[in-house]
Amino acid sequence: MENEVIDLRSDTLTLPTPEMKHAMNNAVLGDDVYHEDPTVNQLEEKVAAMFGREAALFCPTGTMTNQLAIKVHTKPGDEVICDQLSHVYLYEGGGIAMNAFSSVRTLAGDYGKLSAAMVRDAINNPNDIHQPITRLVVLENTTNKGGGSIYNFDEIKRIKTICKDHGLILHLDGARLFNALTETSETPKDYGEVFDSISICLSKGLGCPVGSVLIGSSVFIKQARRARKAMGGGWRQAGGLAAAGIYALDNHISQLKNDHFRAKKVGELLMTYTDIISLYPVETNIVIGVLPENIEAVTFVAKMKENNILCSPFGKNLVRFVTHLDFTDSHLDVLESKLKLYNTSRIL
Amino acid sequence: MENEVIDLRSDTLTLPTPEMKHAMNNAVLGDDVYHEDPTVNQLEEKVAAMFGREAALFCPTGTMTNQLAIKVHTKPGDEVICDQLSHVYLYEGGGIAMNAFSSVRTLAGDYGKLSAAMVRDAINNPNDIHQPITRLVVLENTTNKGGGSIYNFDEIKRIKTICKDHGLILHLDGARLFNALTETSETPKDYGEVFDSISICLSKGLGCPVGSVLIGSSVFIKQARRARKAMGGGWRQAGGLAAAGIYALDNHISQLKNDHFRAKKVGELLMTYTDIISLYPVETNIVIGVLPENIEAVTFVAKMKENNILCSPFGKNLVRFVTHLDFTDSHLDVLESKLKLYNTSRIL
Amino acid sequence: MENEVIDLRSDTLTLPTPEMKHAMNNAVLGDDVYHEDPTVNQLEEKVAAMFGREAALFCPTGTMTNQLAIKVHTKPGDEVICDQLSHVYLYEGGGIAMNAFSSVRTLAGDYGKLSAAMVRDAINNPNDIHQPITRLVVLENTTNKGGGSIYNFDEIKRIKTICKDHGLILHLDGARLFNALTETSETPKDYGEVFDSISICLSKGLGCPVGSVLIGSSVFIKQARRARKAMGGGWRQAGGLAAAGIYALDNHISQLKNDHFRAKKVGELLMTYTDIISLYPVETNIVIGVLPENIEAVTFVAKMKENNILCSPFGKNLVRFVTHLDFTDSHLDVLESKLKLYNTSRIL
Amino acid sequence: MENEVIDLRSDTLTLPTPEMKHAMNNAVLGDDVYHEDPTVNQLEEKVAAMFGREAALFCPTGTMTNQLAIKVHTKPGDEVICDQLSHVYLYEGGGIAMNAFSSVRTLAGDYGKLSAAMVRDAINNPNDIHQPITRLVVLENTTNKGGGSIYNFDEIKRIKTICKDHGLILHLDGARLFNALTETSETPKDYGEVFDSISICLSKGLGCPVGSVLIGSSVFIKQARRARKAMGGGWRQAGGLAAAGIYALDNHISQLKNDHFRAKKVGELLMTYTDIISLYPVETNIVIGVLPENIEAVTFVAKMKENNILCSPFGKNLVRFVTHLDFTDSHLDVLESKLKLYNTSRIL
Repeated sequence: MENEVIDLRSDTLTLPTPEMKHAMNNAVLGDDVYHEDPTVNQLEEKVAAMFGREAALFCPTGTMTNQLAIKVHTKPGDEVICDQLSHVYLYEGGGIAMNAFSSVRTLAGDYGKLSAAMVRDAINNPNDIHQPITRLVVLENTTNKGGGSIYNFDEIKRIKTICKDHGLILHLDGARLFNALTETSETPKDYGEVFDSISICLSKGLGCPVGSVLIGSSVFIKQARRARKAMGGGWRQAGGLAAAGIYALDNHISQLKNDHFRAKKVGELLMTYTDIISLYPVETNIVIGVLPENIEAVTFVAKMKENNILCSPFGKNLVRFVTHLDFTDSHLDVLESKLKLYNTSRIL
Repeated sequence: MENEVIDLRSDTLTLPTPEMKHAMNNAVLGDDVYHEDPTVNQLEEKVAAMFGREAALFCPTGTMTNQLAIKVHTKPGDEVICDQLSHVYLYEGGGIAMNAFSSVRTLAGDYGKLSAAMVRDAINNPNDIHQPITRLVVLENTTNKGGGSIYNFDEIKRIKTICKDHGLILHLDGARLFNALTETSETPKDYGEVFDSISICLSKGLGCPVGSVLIGSSVFIKQARRARKAMGGGWRQAGGLAAAGIYALDNHISQLKNDHFRAKKVGELLMTYTDIISLYPVETNIVIGVLPENIEAVTFVAKMKENNILCSPFGKNLVRFVTHLDFTDSHLDVLESKLKLYNTSRIL
Repeated sequence: MENEVIDLRSDTLTLPTPEMKHAMNNAVLGDDVYHEDPTVNQLEEKVAAMFGREAALFCPTGTMTNQLAIKVHTKPGDEVICDQLSHVYLYEGGGIAMNAFSSVRTLAGDYGKLSAAMVRDAINNPNDIHQPITRLVVLENTTNKGGGSIYNFDEIKRIKTICKDHGLILHLDGARLFNALTETSETPKDYGEVFDSISICLSKGLGCPVGSVLIGSSVFIKQARRARKAMGGGWRQAGGLAAAGIYALDNHISQLKNDHFRAKKVGELLMTYTDIISLYPVETNIVIGVLPENIEAVTFVAKMKENNILCSPFGKNLVRFVTHLDFTDSHLDVLESKLKLYNTSRIL
Repeated sequence: MENEVIDLRSDTLTLPTPEMKHAMNNAVLGDDVYHEDPTVNQLEEKVAAMFGREAALFCPTGTMTNQLAIKVHTKPGDEVICDQLSHVYLYEGGGIAMNAFSSVRTLAGDYGKLSAAMVRDAINNPNDIHQPITRLVVLENTTNKGGGSIYNFDEIKRIKTICKDHGLILHLDGARLFNALTETSETPKDYGEVFDSISICLSKGLGCPVGSVLIGSSVFIKQARRARKAMGGGWRQAGGLAAAGIYALDNHISQLKNDHFRAKKVGELLMTYTDIISLYPVETNIVIGVLPENIEAVTFVAKMKENNILCSPFGKNLVRFVTHLDFTDSHLDVLESKLKLYNTSRIL
């Protein structure tokens, strides 16, 4: 046990289960560039139907699905509104500028969540030629950098109203949308109704090895498919990966509540045994701990690593722990044991 | 007098004086694409020498000089740090993204001015491939949206140290740099030493009809000249406009102190006679007035216009007045008279 | 006379005449960013009316007017069709890619002129997502690199029909359109009817120091004005330069026939006295001479320069001479005298 | 048999063999964004070693590997030289412009192959600011649109010399490089020595479901890895696909000679039984047939499809047949039977 590694760096780290591998191995394949991979087509149709929309596109990453959405929705010289903590701004390599040639207005929301009032106040005067034209609002739910925080759906609807009133497009980075849905009463279709496009990720909480899906109207997905080709996303026999996605949608959504339960436990353990002085509210599967000013995140992470606990630095004095499919109750026990030991050798 | 219009919308509105027009009319001309316009060459050499640098480039606008600098200093996927109020971010059409394909990190400075600590904390980890590479810091002095605020030169030098330590390039949007120099003890050469590149504007406080100058090393200016061609800035016989610039540098810098004096007076009058409830510190030629919550800037500006006083809305409850070469002491008297009348018909 | 320099490198080299300078000096000015320069407005209205179109935009260069047109007419991932000799492809710094993010299909036309059949055969299948979407066709008339060659207007109309049938936009780089009009029966309005947008240059044959004008619908020009701001073309009191343009349109179009006559003479002199072995057809004001394989253009140009005759290398074995407003009949005599001397010291 | 479909549209259409699927199913996985997928790492190291280079990067598609190379090797405003038939120009969605912001100079080579002389003559004068800076030459071997044509390696070395002399970078689109190597005496290391970067495809002749590999120096691959993230290529547990690649490199290269043999046979059958009037030289696994002027490729392809033979239109009067791992000798017999029937119902 001592040598066992508890890896809570990310929910992207999960490995496919035997059942998922079985599904992958038995998938019927074809060339997806020719639109002839039956399993990819099945996944895309399944996801589109799930969200009550016309079409979907299976892509290698969530960065690709988000960037395709931003690229298709905007023109060079437009402006995208998003939270200053959003993944599309912070962690997609400056793609808003480099892929879509759009300016970005980053707002200081609440744990990564915008309000309708903030969006309204950030819209540029479309008649002022000095300024980019505000075109697109991107929300993230749950918020990664905000600690897995969940949007209030009523606020989303208010944001939608602002968008309608100003002719703005609304995209959802739903990399962890199923985590949000697990804790709230809305359905995928509710989100499909409000957003012009949605990106969901299969390789985070749902435990697939590779893949994200972009959802929207037929016209939008057709444009995204074209843009995907030039970005290098036109893969061939991707049906094995799509089979994993289908399996995960059928079998892994229901277990997300366990991740959330364990995340709360992880938070408690961290507060009890480590130098972490406070936590962001633990709403889903992400735990962000705040360190005292005099302990840098990288120091804390290195110390944890010595104890075979892996987590991520997430700012100067912030660390992130993420629960996932490969982190079970017994791992939780191991974590507690390790932290107890750790307790005797705190940094401070 | 009643029908006389007092135009304080911007210092870009000035018309050339008879002496300046004389200089323009007598300029020796040539084709600047061939580098053969002697007056353009003279202006570029004069400005380069003034700042103690190797070379300069005369361009149609300050947006072009700034955008060229950003474009030449960065590569696609880099990140530019600037204040959230900076002109390069707010008023250049999203050019950081569209012209330079760079991401932007906007910081909440003090009246548009960054501190060294803020810059330091905003530098991305260059080894994290999720994030753009921080490459360039852009300062603006004086700050337009910050109300003509002047940087403390010691802070600039501290920012320079941070830049050096992290391999960052430092550009100055010096559209109103001569206004700053008028109030401080530094010289253009001091700025030339600290910044990798500087843009100065001839058509604001200096009163020229058209033009800005970009300053830097020979290699940098050579690259900027090439980039200027593709951006459509390779004009031909621009010597007439360059002659205005030479004249202005020789004759109009010294009068900026009058603009500043009058700006302070304008601020006092506005506080005395109008609904404006407070002012940003009036340090140079820009006066930003704060209106009460229930008076929108556009309403105030419209009301002023009815009284033949022109100013600019500058945010929801902010208005801007700018003094300039065409606003003399007698105009100040006219303004007071008009405001006195206005006083009797306030909005509130 | 011996020391007198005959400069036939380009028609961009002309200096304003005293009458033109008078017009420039007397122009009423204003801030063009505020749309308040009456002379700029007058020029734009004059040119729009001349071509029977709604609106026009005065810009510093023809590169800017062309690039704005390409940028506004296309989206990233579109494709532009043009001749392989066209200025927009060869001499605008790769702007089709860098400013408009569009692919380019360069065709091998006849002295720089496309045929309707060539355009038709170059249109991509819009349903093939491997290929960019063909969106815009750019013609150049007269063709610079094709030796001032003039389009047959019937062919242009056939190209227009192809464009209509395939939903393509048609732009004219009319940098030297007035040279074409001088030799044909069409009017500016005929061109205004056929093309979606037209760029004309004031600083070539028309003799202005600076400036080009972009022409099109109100919606198009509004978008171009916005794009111009971000590209750094939003100049201020440009009315002096606009006054030169108005003067040139009123007074200098009629003299282009003299340039054409003198170009034919120049061609004859070059064939008589120099190593040039053949000429491109001399249709307007450009003379392109073909050198024997063993004489490189740069060598010939250098030799000419020794004799105070300036011309441009225009390919490995091609040289270009351009007649213009500052090249009069007496200069023609001087040229002949110089060439006679030169004749005695040919390179071969 | 009659209903059996012979699919020769592309060598991308192959399905993984049972042995390959076994390898995929047994691959050890990890998160490739963290650089922790051991199978991906093994594939990258294997390929790098094979070509005698430092590093490699496994990507979802050959479009991504090519586009990453072009993006990393160039700066906005550079120019790329390639054949007018090259895949990077024709079939990657205008990515040279949209992803790398570079201009493209397309040359009319011999069946898609450039000569050293052509490259030399296409290099722009680096001192002429009108023109993009020539930076990169891209060769394709074998050539897709040139009918699987193989470069003479001596010509490649002469092109390399030109590149060295002019400071140009040389990239190989080696989507079908192993087809070329099968017919010539060079080794992967020979290519690794000459080219700055190489892209090879695993999902064409080698029969993998998904993936291409980019090869080069450590510094280059590090930059490409960063650029890949922003383009959306940073997939997670890609080890299953990498295992297919390892298997294919070990087991499928040697069978390419069978594809080539069968392609020659296919060519003969097409000449014997169909309206095709001539063939491009059949050097590897691609057969391009030329139709008479009055038979359009789409008509021919439709007719073939009626007979359950699938091929691709490849220009107005050109059709392409590609042999591959899933096309065996017995399929060849079926093809002959079908074509014999077809013979009785030719289009003409």
